[in-house]
Amino acid sequence: MHIKSILRMLSAILMIVSLFMLACSLLAIFEQETLLTTLSLVIPAAIGIGFFLVMSLVSRNDKKPFLTNRDGFLLVTLSWVFASALGAIPFVLARSIPSYIDAFFETMSGFTTTGASILTDIEALPRSLLLWRATTHWLGGMGIVVLLVAVLPALGFSAIRVMEAEAPGPSVDRITPHISSTAKMLWLIYLGITLLEIVLLVIGGMTLFDAVCHAFATMATGGFSTKNTSVAYYKSGFIHWVITIFMFIAGTNFTLHYRLLTGKPRSVLKDTEFRVYFAIFAIASIAIGFDLLTHGTYKSFGESIRYSSFQVSSILTTTGFATADFGTWPTLSLTVLLVLMFIGGCAGSTGGGIKVIRIVVLFKMAMTEMRYVANPRGVYTIFLGSKALRKNVIYDIAALVFLYFVFFFISVLVISFTGVDILTNVTAVIANLGNIGPGLGKVGPVYNYSFFPWWAKVWLSFAMLVGRLEVYTVLVLFSKKFWKSF
Amino acid sequence: MHIKSILRMLSAILMIVSLFMLACSLLAIFEQETLLTTLSLVIPAAIGIGFFLVMSLVSRNDKKPFLTNRDGFLLVTLSWVFASALGAIPFVLARSIPSYIDAFFETMSGFTTTGASILTDIEALPRSLLLWRATTHWLGGMGIVVLLVAVLPALGFSAIRVMEAEAPGPSVDRITPHISSTAKMLWLIYLGITLLEIVLLVIGGMTLFDAVCHAFATMATGGFSTKNTSVAYYKSGFIHWVITIFMFIAGTNFTLHYRLLTGKPRSVLKDTEFRVYFAIFAIASIAIGFDLLTHGTYKSFGESIRYSSFQVSSILTTTGFATADFGTWPTLSLTVLLVLMFIGGCAGSTGGGIKVIRIVVLFKMAMTEMRYVANPRGVYTIFLGSKALRKNVIYDIAALVFLYFVFFFISVLVISFTGVDILTNVTAVIANLGNIGPGLGKVGPVYNYSFFPWWAKVWLSFAMLVGRLEVYTVLVLFSKKFWKSF
Repeated sequence: MHIKSILRMLSAILMIVSLFMLACSLLAIFEQETLLTTLSLVIPAAIGIGFFLVMSLVSRNDKKPFLTNRDGFLLVTLSWVFASALGAIPFVLARSIPSYIDAFFETMSGFTTTGASILTDIEALPRSLLLWRATTHWLGGMGIVVLLVAVLPALGFSAIRVMEAEAPGPSVDRITPHISSTAKMLWLIYLGITLLEIVLLVIGGMTLFDAVCHAFATMATGGFSTKNTSVAYYKSGFIHWVITIFMFIAGTNFTLHYRLLTGKPRSVLKDTEFRVYFAIFAIASIAIGFDLLTHGTYKSFGESIRYSSFQVSSILTTTGFATADFGTWPTLSLTVLLVLMFIGGCAGSTGGGIKVIRIVVLFKMAMTEMRYVANPRGVYTIFLGSKALRKNVIYDIAALVFLYFVFFFISVLVISFTGVDILTNVTAVIANLGNIGPGLGKVGPVYNYSFFPWWAKVWLSFAMLVGRLEVYTVLVLFSKKFWKSF
Repeated sequence: MHIKSILRMLSAILMIVSLFMLACSLLAIFEQETLLTTLSLVIPAAIGIGFFLVMSLVSRNDKKPFLTNRDGFLLVTLSWVFASALGAIPFVLARSIPSYIDAFFETMSGFTTTGASILTDIEALPRSLLLWRATTHWLGGMGIVVLLVAVLPALGFSAIRVMEAEAPGPSVDRITPHISSTAKMLWLIYLGITLLEIVLLVIGGMTLFDAVCHAFATMATGGFSTKNTSVAYYKSGFIHWVITIFMFIAGTNFTLHYRLLTGKPRSVLKDTEFRVYFAIFAIASIAIGFDLLTHGTYKSFGESIRYSSFQVSSILTTTGFATADFGTWPTLSLTVLLVLMFIGGCAGSTGGGIKVIRIVVLFKMAMTEMRYVANPRGVYTIFLGSKALRKNVIYDIAALVFLYFVFFFISVLVISFTGVDILTNVTAVIANLGNIGPGLGKVGPVYNYSFFPWWAKVWLSFAMLVGRLEVYTVLVLFSKKFWKSF
């Protein structure tokens, strides 16, 4: 283990987080919020920057930091835990969230783009803290470590390994030959689309502040709103559709956006994962739309489709915004949403969940096995687009998805100790493990997570991290083998 | 496809089913039930036997029937469907169940050892029909096709293939060199343990009739009782414990019983699946026992453990008996039971569900993958006991379990069209697919399935069959490949 290298990289990550915190404090100063609010952002930022300076000083004569595969896992997990630990301090200092565990839950929910909240009155928070809350989403969406890889290529460590531990999906597509320029490109695209959304939301009638916060939460597939009633606060169909579409964009593999921008739109339409992702979105929206119409939840078909496609986009991409209390929707709609919770966005997007590509691969695997049953002497290869998949890759995916379900069932058992009803319990786990945010029952879109005991909040924070870093990165740290062979 | 061979074997299976129906009609005559009741059993039996005689006559000059692998899948699926179709007739003729679809659901539930019922007043049925209802369990438990293989070795077709399509678990252990003597041995052990349970239940105070019916339902892990309140009707702790233990025995691999009887008790204790199965049973019973005690559901620890271990045994083995309305138990208990529903009994037992062995193998697979993450250059082999597992076997299991979950989610979507609440909907699907019987909510232990619309009953019957024949045997018939290559 290269402890010093890990600490050096960790301090750089906390420094980046701190700089964003400082930026939020500027809003506090600009809007003349209380000194307490300003200091609550400045103090933890100073701690983060101070830690970085000390580490730089201590290791000023060292070689470039070197990280092995396993150091990478440790670094990434530690980064997320410490970023949340540091990012939680402003809420406590400003007395917006009295309990530190609650603040940690809220911040972990921010960074992992879960969007589960313990706040009962969001609008009571100072605007600078609301901005910070949205910023945790935006940083976590594309990944803090990816950001570090992008902005600090000078450090030149084995970047791909660390990035793989953080990036959602089975593998990191290198869109450019150098990993740091890939990271930079991804962040630039992310920034560009976010800016575009801000402009559209302002055109739709949002204030600049709300537009920024909602765009951050949309593009990160996070789900924190600045309003107590989430996006339902806005009645404008334009705003609903803008957010629906941008959530969908955020849940798409960013490599596809790169290809689109570099003039290869055809390859996007040929992408298997994208096609399945779009098909799920379309079919689920129409199914729920009809269900809402026939049950008279909304009067016109247009209105039904507007609300259904918003919610489908929100749950499928694991954002968690709501324009309606879908907890009161008819059973078919609820069931479709429940199934979507297990799917999630595309690989290489900011979305959570199991990811569409994994479902596609496992489905092809099961279909192929069925062919073997029908014809044991046949030879079948599984293709993804024009690429043949090796059996080992499929095997890895199956193991990961199984582990995901094992962790899911264990978490359901743990949370059942709280004594809440099964629907709340089960959907709370899937909403946190899948980085969605709201579930059904007592954690439905119009409720929040404040009523859970502290240990349940700790476990759910842990589940968010396990979900965001895709199971292995976190859980491997709990295996004996990992520490023995260091 | 060898249609004539398939029809010949099918008629033999229906003949066996008919003989058992005739046996039940003897009870009707003996107890002087109405002529209608007697005829309702005799008429379908005559149809079954008539069909066999016609087929024998038609093919009297043919060679021995020959079946390929695929013929086997078709035969097994057809056997279960037609056995249920024939076995449903008595209920309709005797006017005990007016709707044929309801009767088909009830009979399929019997043969697949699900135990889900549409009857609102079980005790109103004539005793001969209750015996027939219990007999469908007993026949389906060890398998009608296995029985055929056992009693008709003279037909000498490629028996192992057909048996594999029906037997629960990844593979059929040949305990004797000849498949037909293995089948005979399994049925003898099954018969022996059933007789032992009947004796014990009579000692415990049951009437002979009730003892026979309950022993049939226990050993098949079925769950049909002759009482409206299931086993809760009996207050005797002795009866509860006898059924608890015999459900546990029925959920154990019958190869282990054979080994135990042939004087190799050590090898039973060394069996990985059995150890995990026992550990799940013990831990879940104790956890629920404590939960019931602390919530004051029962007053003493002894009583809590009696009710908890009965219910754990019943759900884990997918029997579905109840000594209490566990739907009203505290959340932790309910959650544990819900998780157990997904596990099921051991391979080679009469239990349903995914099976303990598959969970064990996939768990080892996930753990091994974690080792690879920690140390990518390591070489790890997955052992089951002292046997190294080939990667292909694990791959097959992963595909099957994934397909099981896909079918589960699709069924949940289908049943959600009924508009019942999510808890009812989800647990109804798992209770039928897993061959358990009662679920939670409106299909809890004190309710029944009568309120579902006809198409939901048809789908749930289909789910029972998919669960009993372990997904591929049935679903492969829906693949184009299967029919194309015939």
